[in-house]
Amino acid sequence: MNAAATHAVLSAHPRASLDEAERQTASIDRSGYVPPSFADGVIFAQSIDDVVLAMKLAHEHGAVIVPRGAGTGLAAGSSAQAGQIVLDMSRMDKILHIDPVEATALVQPGVINAAVNQAAGEHGLFYAPDPASTAICSIGGNIATNAGGMWCAKYGVTRESVLSLLVVLPDGQLLRTGRRTIKGVAGYDMNALMIGSEGTLGIVVEALLRLRPKPKHTATLVAYFPDEDTAAQAASAVIAQRLTPSVLELMCGKTLKAVDAALGTEHESRGGALLLAQTDGYGAQLEMQALRDAIAPLAGRIELAKDAQEAEALIEARRQAIPSMEKLGTASICDIGVPRNRLAEAFAGLHRIQDERGVSIFTIAHAADGNLHPIIVVPEDQSITTGAPKAALGDMFYLAQSLGGTLTGEHGIGRLKQDWMAEELGETSLDLQRRVRAVFDPQGILNPGKAI
Amino acid sequence: MNAAATHAVLSAHPRASLDEAERQTASIDRSGYVPPSFADGVIFAQSIDDVVLAMKLAHEHGAVIVPRGAGTGLAAGSSAQAGQIVLDMSRMDKILHIDPVEATALVQPGVINAAVNQAAGEHGLFYAPDPASTAICSIGGNIATNAGGMWCAKYGVTRESVLSLLVVLPDGQLLRTGRRTIKGVAGYDMNALMIGSEGTLGIVVEALLRLRPKPKHTATLVAYFPDEDTAAQAASAVIAQRLTPSVLELMCGKTLKAVDAALGTEHESRGGALLLAQTDGYGAQLEMQALRDAIAPLAGRIELAKDAQEAEALIEARRQAIPSMEKLGTASICDIGVPRNRLAEAFAGLHRIQDERGVSIFTIAHAADGNLHPIIVVPEDQSITTGAPKAALGDMFYLAQSLGGTLTGEHGIGRLKQDWMAEELGETSLDLQRRVRAVFDPQGILNPGKAI
Repeated sequence: MNAAATHAVLSAHPRASLDEAERQTASIDRSGYVPPSFADGVIFAQSIDDVVLAMKLAHEHGAVIVPRGAGTGLAAGSSAQAGQIVLDMSRMDKILHIDPVEATALVQPGVINAAVNQAAGEHGLFYAPDPASTAICSIGGNIATNAGGMWCAKYGVTRESVLSLLVVLPDGQLLRTGRRTIKGVAGYDMNALMIGSEGTLGIVVEALLRLRPKPKHTATLVAYFPDEDTAAQAASAVIAQRLTPSVLELMCGKTLKAVDAALGTEHESRGGALLLAQTDGYGAQLEMQALRDAIAPLAGRIELAKDAQEAEALIEARRQAIPSMEKLGTASICDIGVPRNRLAEAFAGLHRIQDERGVSIFTIAHAADGNLHPIIVVPEDQSITTGAPKAALGDMFYLAQSLGGTLTGEHGIGRLKQDWMAEELGETSLDLQRRVRAVFDPQGILNPGKAI
Repeated sequence: MNAAATHAVLSAHPRASLDEAERQTASIDRSGYVPPSFADGVIFAQSIDDVVLAMKLAHEHGAVIVPRGAGTGLAAGSSAQAGQIVLDMSRMDKILHIDPVEATALVQPGVINAAVNQAAGEHGLFYAPDPASTAICSIGGNIATNAGGMWCAKYGVTRESVLSLLVVLPDGQLLRTGRRTIKGVAGYDMNALMIGSEGTLGIVVEALLRLRPKPKHTATLVAYFPDEDTAAQAASAVIAQRLTPSVLELMCGKTLKAVDAALGTEHESRGGALLLAQTDGYGAQLEMQALRDAIAPLAGRIELAKDAQEAEALIEARRQAIPSMEKLGTASICDIGVPRNRLAEAFAGLHRIQDERGVSIFTIAHAADGNLHPIIVVPEDQSITTGAPKAALGDMFYLAQSLGGTLTGEHGIGRLKQDWMAEELGETSLDLQRRVRAVFDPQGILNPGKAI
């Protein structure tokens, strides 16, 4: 039944591929989840018409479509299996227009995050949401997960930087959400509803992004602490001092060791945990001085970046944290959020889980947002979605919950975190959300089994 | 039928009033719209249980409920008439808890916006969305309209400052949206869906607000220009120079005259239009110098506020703009948004409309957001919802549309702007939104005829 439907679509679409290698690649993301089988085919969209045709055919035949951007998702949100078709958006990767006066960029969904930033930079602008994977992740995927990043500490997440979307609905109709203006309240916030919906409500084919003025000045500091609990206390002190850093990142000692091994740096010799902070704007230096004063009583060594190059090297060390761990084995990247003043408690809890489950946990955190990425690394040949790693993932959720937090700050639910959704949202909310989903996709053909 | 239903609810609810004066007051907001009749009764909620009971009774009997905050709406979003019951939330006005470390406030919906800011201020914090009506508008109403204000130029609108809501659904069930953490992406963004929904999806009974660090320093400037077109060009120059003022307000010459008459100030003698700008943060003075440089070629007189008192007087003049006009007659307050670099074109269009329709238009604008409030003032005894004022309102929408803009930046659709919704959103979007509404309120008992 499913196979008949998918093959009817694949045989009718001019951009479809049945190539085995392509089917396999398109069925897996960076979450470590290995699907039990691979998608029946891949449609490589090159235009809005390609997407409309794919959805019209799927709608007609009742075939399941799994949308996919750059495949860098960390929650198996775009993983696919037999009986499904992957709709690959990575070839729709153009920046269509940058309006330097209005500070907006109109882009296709497959464009790489860093490419938007590079193009914006030529006009003295930047695009704020900057996942660590900026060099390889796509804007469409960022929108699907409401992605965050380092600069979100000051500038908000993807939702705050997307003005309008052009979306292909599950029946092939086109929907425009949001507006071209900064503010607007006509009707419900369909734009926000689409952002973070993990490809379950429609397929983004164009996005109007809000760019921001590149800060005139920045100041960057790295501080080393005896351990991560102390670093977490220092991060809370920054918030309590009413400072607004543009970056406030924490890396645990084990992460420093992994980064040192991968990049040849020497962070671990300087302390058991690191805090990377950046301030920006006309008062960047003054605010950094205040930040330094706030953390000094807790810190060991503190280093200010002398120039942009040194600052970039520090930022890059943070960006390379996950790739560095991936060199040690298969990584399961957790993404819990807690209130910002409970970071130290979160670290204490993670130590407990590490000991009790006998797993190896590396932790990095967007400290100003209370968003932690505890990363479980297992040998290449072991599964991360069963046994102790899975149990530890559950423990982390209950830890976050006990601290008033959430299962996922910025990576999404995908397939990996389904088990804890009802407990986080409650049945009333989940039931409403399922019915909202059915308004958009009554047949259930768009990315079933993901998100809610 | 309607009357039977409403009376069944009113007779069963211990907080119901049938008092004629109360029914009349509760049926009208500040939009100038006069309903053809008044609500059958008013329920003055004092607790969550009161709201749950009201909705359970309404659900059982099929009675229409119109939620109401402080009644300061400008789009007749909480206007009511015969066959309807007003659910007045103004007595649920407590600040339940402020967490000074986490920088959050848990409040009831009836609390006045300025009261939140005052309480936050004691901890070095502030609540960013600040409608001009801050002294009289409630947080519940702010949430219903996704209200903006002056500081939104830098800090975003209500949506960016509400972390979580407790909502009573149309059938009396309780729903919690959002989360206590800064970031979170589990499930659809039900929080954003609720914000700006004008009381059509549920009734907010508790809100967890995000507070922000009160800026260490501010700098405030007022500049006078020969006319509003030049002031608009200056505002666009500020944006083009990549500055990020926390306030950038424009007032036209007629508005200055009205403010002078009401407050005894002398703005009009100094220029034909005014720009009020504030910068904040550790670099406030430096950024203000850059802002001054950007506008100087276009400005006449420029004055820097010498101290906080002078700055507050300037801000207050802007806040008093609408009350000053209301002394001249009945005001119809339009709320269009345009891309920020098209402000001057918007003013040219408003001049045309004024001439063609023979109406008197006063304009103030949140210039950094491209959000204009052209205000039509007619003598007390004339209607603003028919004839030339209504036609002018339509003209303004088409003007905004022709510039790539929107019908409403921050006041909402309410009853007043229904006529242009389909043209702004398109049938596909409107149809989806109606079906989303039906998921929450299948009976259509919550604020029918408003918003979408």
